[in-house]
Amino acid sequence: MALLSALMMEIVIPVCAVIGIAFSLMQWRCRSRYSDNEEEDPTQRIAVEDKYAEIKSTISEGVNSFLLTAYLYAGFFVVAFAIVIFLLLGSVESFSTQSRPCKFDPSNTCKPGLVAAVFSTISFLLGAFTSVFFGSLGTKTAINANARTALEKRNIAGRTFRSAAVVGFLLAAIDLLVLYLAIILFKLYYGNDWEGLFEAITGYFLGGSFMALFGRASGGIYAKAADVCVHLVKEIERNSPQTDRNPAVITNYVGDIVGDIAGMGPDLFGSYAESSCAALVLASISSFGMEHNFTAMCYPLLISSMGILVCLISTFWWEIRPASKKEQLIIATILMTIGIAIVSWIALPSSFTIYNIGLPKVVKNWQLSLCVGVGLWAGQISGFVNKYYTNEDFSSCTCLQYVAADNFRSGLQAALENVSVALGSVSIPFFAAVSIFVSYHLAATYGIAVAALGMLCTVATRLAIDASSPISDNAERIAMMVRIEAPEADGNTTAAIGKGFAIDSAALVSIALLGAFVNRPAMSSSVDVLTPKVIVGLILGTSLPYCFSAMTMKSVGRAGFKMALKVREQLLEFGPEHIGIRRRPDYAACFEISTKASFRGVIGPTALVMFTPLIIGTVFGVEMLSGLLAGSLGSVVQIAISASKTDGAWSQAKEDIKAGALEYAKTHCSEEPMLLRIAVEGKTIGGPWKDTSGPPLNILIQLMAVESLVFAPFFASHGGLLFKFL
Amino acid sequence: MALLSALMMEIVIPVCAVIGIAFSLMQWRCRSRYSDNEEEDPTQRIAVEDKYAEIKSTISEGVNSFLLTAYLYAGFFVVAFAIVIFLLLGSVESFSTQSRPCKFDPSNTCKPGLVAAVFSTISFLLGAFTSVFFGSLGTKTAINANARTALEKRNIAGRTFRSAAVVGFLLAAIDLLVLYLAIILFKLYYGNDWEGLFEAITGYFLGGSFMALFGRASGGIYAKAADVCVHLVKEIERNSPQTDRNPAVITNYVGDIVGDIAGMGPDLFGSYAESSCAALVLASISSFGMEHNFTAMCYPLLISSMGILVCLISTFWWEIRPASKKEQLIIATILMTIGIAIVSWIALPSSFTIYNIGLPKVVKNWQLSLCVGVGLWAGQISGFVNKYYTNEDFSSCTCLQYVAADNFRSGLQAALENVSVALGSVSIPFFAAVSIFVSYHLAATYGIAVAALGMLCTVATRLAIDASSPISDNAERIAMMVRIEAPEADGNTTAAIGKGFAIDSAALVSIALLGAFVNRPAMSSSVDVLTPKVIVGLILGTSLPYCFSAMTMKSVGRAGFKMALKVREQLLEFGPEHIGIRRRPDYAACFEISTKASFRGVIGPTALVMFTPLIIGTVFGVEMLSGLLAGSLGSVVQIAISASKTDGAWSQAKEDIKAGALEYAKTHCSEEPMLLRIAVEGKTIGGPWKDTSGPPLNILIQLMAVESLVFAPFFASHGGLLFKFL
Repeated sequence: MALLSALMMEIVIPVCAVIGIAFSLMQWRCRSRYSDNEEEDPTQRIAVEDKYAEIKSTISEGVNSFLLTAYLYAGFFVVAFAIVIFLLLGSVESFSTQSRPCKFDPSNTCKPGLVAAVFSTISFLLGAFTSVFFGSLGTKTAINANARTALEKRNIAGRTFRSAAVVGFLLAAIDLLVLYLAIILFKLYYGNDWEGLFEAITGYFLGGSFMALFGRASGGIYAKAADVCVHLVKEIERNSPQTDRNPAVITNYVGDIVGDIAGMGPDLFGSYAESSCAALVLASISSFGMEHNFTAMCYPLLISSMGILVCLISTFWWEIRPASKKEQLIIATILMTIGIAIVSWIALPSSFTIYNIGLPKVVKNWQLSLCVGVGLWAGQISGFVNKYYTNEDFSSCTCLQYVAADNFRSGLQAALENVSVALGSVSIPFFAAVSIFVSYHLAATYGIAVAALGMLCTVATRLAIDASSPISDNAERIAMMVRIEAPEADGNTTAAIGKGFAIDSAALVSIALLGAFVNRPAMSSSVDVLTPKVIVGLILGTSLPYCFSAMTMKSVGRAGFKMALKVREQLLEFGPEHIGIRRRPDYAACFEISTKASFRGVIGPTALVMFTPLIIGTVFGVEMLSGLLAGSLGSVVQIAISASKTDGAWSQAKEDIKAGALEYAKTHCSEEPMLLRIAVEGKTIGGPWKDTSGPPLNILIQLMAVESLVFAPFFASHGGLLFKFL
Repeated sequence: MALLSALMMEIVIPVCAVIGIAFSLMQWRCRSRYSDNEEEDPTQRIAVEDKYAEIKSTISEGVNSFLLTAYLYAGFFVVAFAIVIFLLLGSVESFSTQSRPCKFDPSNTCKPGLVAAVFSTISFLLGAFTSVFFGSLGTKTAINANARTALEKRNIAGRTFRSAAVVGFLLAAIDLLVLYLAIILFKLYYGNDWEGLFEAITGYFLGGSFMALFGRASGGIYAKAADVCVHLVKEIERNSPQTDRNPAVITNYVGDIVGDIAGMGPDLFGSYAESSCAALVLASISSFGMEHNFTAMCYPLLISSMGILVCLISTFWWEIRPASKKEQLIIATILMTIGIAIVSWIALPSSFTIYNIGLPKVVKNWQLSLCVGVGLWAGQISGFVNKYYTNEDFSSCTCLQYVAADNFRSGLQAALENVSVALGSVSIPFFAAVSIFVSYHLAATYGIAVAALGMLCTVATRLAIDASSPISDNAERIAMMVRIEAPEADGNTTAAIGKGFAIDSAALVSIALLGAFVNRPAMSSSVDVLTPKVIVGLILGTSLPYCFSAMTMKSVGRAGFKMALKVREQLLEFGPEHIGIRRRPDYAACFEISTKASFRGVIGPTALVMFTPLIIGTVFGVEMLSGLLAGSLGSVVQIAISASKTDGAWSQAKEDIKAGALEYAKTHCSEEPMLLRIAVEGKTIGGPWKDTSGPPLNILIQLMAVESLVFAPFFASHGGLLFKFL
């Protein structure tokens, strides 16, 4: 038996969560202490503060109108889907209220089919609600942080980082707490039927992922539409003001918050929670579930608790050396490695049995801790490697060198360079591949699940780092708008670290979820790529992420131009120099266009993602569904690679053409700035892909995988209708 | 036993091929008859003819310089790869010269390992050589046809179509003849060892595919670089001449021939031959092979022979109603349906056994003819559906309507529209999926192989239709350059029909090849998507086509701008109005830039495609290789869908933004044509994807599949080195 008793574990997890929340509130208090800018004239200072307050309230207005509309649309969707879940899962056992022998362990008694449907629906709603809560919490914090940071003149980095840390720790801790409470509460009813318990809990992850996708995609459309609008207005109305008198500029700020922060909370929630989901479901059908070893069952939650403590400690390093976020990440990783060893030692029995598609596999506790460790380090290294390739200097320099040095290079050299570009792209999935091989070898699919968990367990620190760059960017720009001297910028330096790691973890999580899905009792045991059902599913799955992206991007262009027209109207009405002086600019009109566009734009893609697995599974059966998931996974990884390299496959080509044009324009037609402007325009077009369509894709694949898992009992009993009738 | 005796068959196939060649030569004679333009002034006519001759010789010079370089580079590659084939395949049996019992049918005696290596290498060289021959034959015909058609004033459509028919029938017939002769010659040595015979014949297809990929990709880069150059020069040097005095214009013509025609022959050769390849290899390990039923073995060749006859007859319909190419295709399809029934009836035994991964499956002859028929009709319908979606009116109208009607549409409507776009994309793989399901159900993997054959058997007619559009386009433009009145254009109306069908057939061919690969004795029997090796291969495979595309596109931009600089130099030296009058423009310099760029650009991508399957199979084993192939297949289908919809997923988004910009520019800033120009520029950027990277991709996937098949014995004995040592 494990060293840590079930009771101790039941105390340790919530305590860690509470520590995280307390730390976060402490940081908030630290952050709120207003430093005096003594050298400033008091009257002038009050004027500046009033101005800030006004801008802040305008931004709040925009964000709130977006969030309210988001909740309205999402609420409708969530209720509709909850009904679908209830009906489909209820129909598996024909809404029976009789207890039945469990499928996986027939000696045990499981709860009736109706109960599974009811609890899955409840946990779905709970997941969606938690996610909504995260979204608004993150946003409110960010708005406050923005305004306050902008007011500051000294120690901007500190203030920004503390604000971001508030978001990071609060979300990680609440996430852990809610999941833990849900499991404990469900357990009161489910008792020893753990199979049923964790089947129902998957609904929670589906709800969370759904809201994450919805939030990320709609926020992305909003942000990018506003961005396109600002560029267009600047391009065409040469003397338009770049201050709060220009409604396009304010909408752009709102977009940054809505796109970067409001989406980030639920997104994190999704990835983090789902890695636990796969591990929990797989554990429930392992020897932990059979022997009712609750401590070992909750191993994923213990790892997360340890993660919070480790991130907390590594934050103190930042207090000593504020400049080095990279060092902070490395320290967190080293500490976490020790933490994993401790948790594995005290929580796991020294040897246990995992079932991989029915076949037992004996795993030692040190082997499992190795899986988590591999995930942790692979994620870390992949992040740094990705940062190397996205480094601005690195890519732009090669771009221009191409044009300049072309004469001196032989064909072979060019070929080698091409190959090195290809190898660069492969480096990100390489780390995912290593983790997959090692962890699968050690502990089958459960190993992959805990490796994903390992990648994500230092998430509080990562989120703090990721969130600080939009906060500081925005603060800088707001400050620029009011006074001339800007606070030193602190953003964008570390954001790229997160990207390679996000897709690696999404890949691992999806494979683990796919494994959990196939391991469900009554599923077919192998998914052979060469059967037509699987390969057709695969082909369909490969296009799905592209369809999703194309749909979301479509909305961006249209909304951006509509908004630009609106701004132009206002500029023409007042004249650029008078707008906002005689009358407050009509911000609301711009907010409305962006909000409307983002929700109109998000319905189609979301419906596509939510209903495709359901329809494929119901009509064509689980083999095609498995193919669909595998194909989508491949595509998502591919797109993520392109997107995270900023200039990836497609846009690299465009960038090269642009770079050539730029060079050409500089050298030969300095009197003709047109080409220069085209080059700038090229960047605007490149944007939507990276910002709007890229981020929701790792949610997309996880969402589809967890959805398949939730509906697995339904597919097993009623799936593949078409082939039943033929 | 079949009705058709082996002897009869041995006569019928070459006779059909010879009829095809004879018909093609007859068309050539028809086409050569020079119609008198009597109303023209004789002196003026001689001047015009001289001018044409000059332009023709300049174009020839460019094309020849391209082809010579192509043969040089490709020759190096081919020799190197032939050595690799010999060494690797020879090493399977340690270069043994001893006969051995066959793997599949141990009662039979097979030829020694060294012989397999030697014959595979010979057939690889033969395939590459045939493909080169096709490339130059097509090109020579096209140059002649261009110049002659441009001279014509009446009946342009007829002249163009006859030229294209020459190419179509000649290639289809020679292809059949060479393949048939190779089989017969190899059979003289191999005798009853059919397993070894068809194993060796796969090398022929690998050689053909390799040259096809090389030609298509390098031609595509050449053509697009020249295209970008022309656009840039026109954009920047406002008063540059658009005649042969502008070297950019001439290079652009050379590019069209090199890109569209020189690539088309080998490309067709590849697809057509490989569908036979899969069918032949699978048949050699069926009851045909066991019972040594040579007539049934050659069923794929008989279907191709019938295809030539049917296309020949349908061409007469065109003589009656020249305007309707669509009708011609439909008639060919109907006749072919009857033809398939006849061939199946006389060539196949009424019932036979297919082995699908070791499991026997009894197939009736009518079931197999149904497979071919399904492929034939699915390809046909898919082509028409694709044409509907690529229809210019259809897509551009919705694009502009979006901007205009946005106010009047509710969110739901927008969502529905989005979904309909997604469904539109799915329609192309839908037909492939139907063929796959039906034919797999009827005759397992062999069914899929003959379905692919069915799609491709009316290829002579299709090629005639496809080739006529670049010929007539070029002729029109050359004529415009010399005299003012242009002959009526006849191109581009039917080209789109071919695109959906090309990718459908590539998908079927690859699946069939994949099936043949896995059916090889000593291969693992199932490729489970959920094992890490397969999924890692899948992820890698998904990115491969994108890497390939990114690499080829990269070269386009650079070469285009370099060439534009060269042209500008010449324009500045002479002044735009004097260039080509005082001295002949330096065409060679432009040709050289494009040629150099295309071969520099093609080495990396080709090496990537050729060596990746080899390395993956050797180091990681056949499971990962199968995953790689499946993943690439998914990606290629996805890219083909985007590319064939002209505005597909990515470029649709860009086009929408451009359409918005255009609309905006028109309405609000008529004094500012900048945005309008940006919109035009957008099309130039959109181009490389469609023209350079799209076409080689269906070759790519077939090439990798056939390569895996060729090296299957090596992978089976020495593959997966990494896991052997671990």
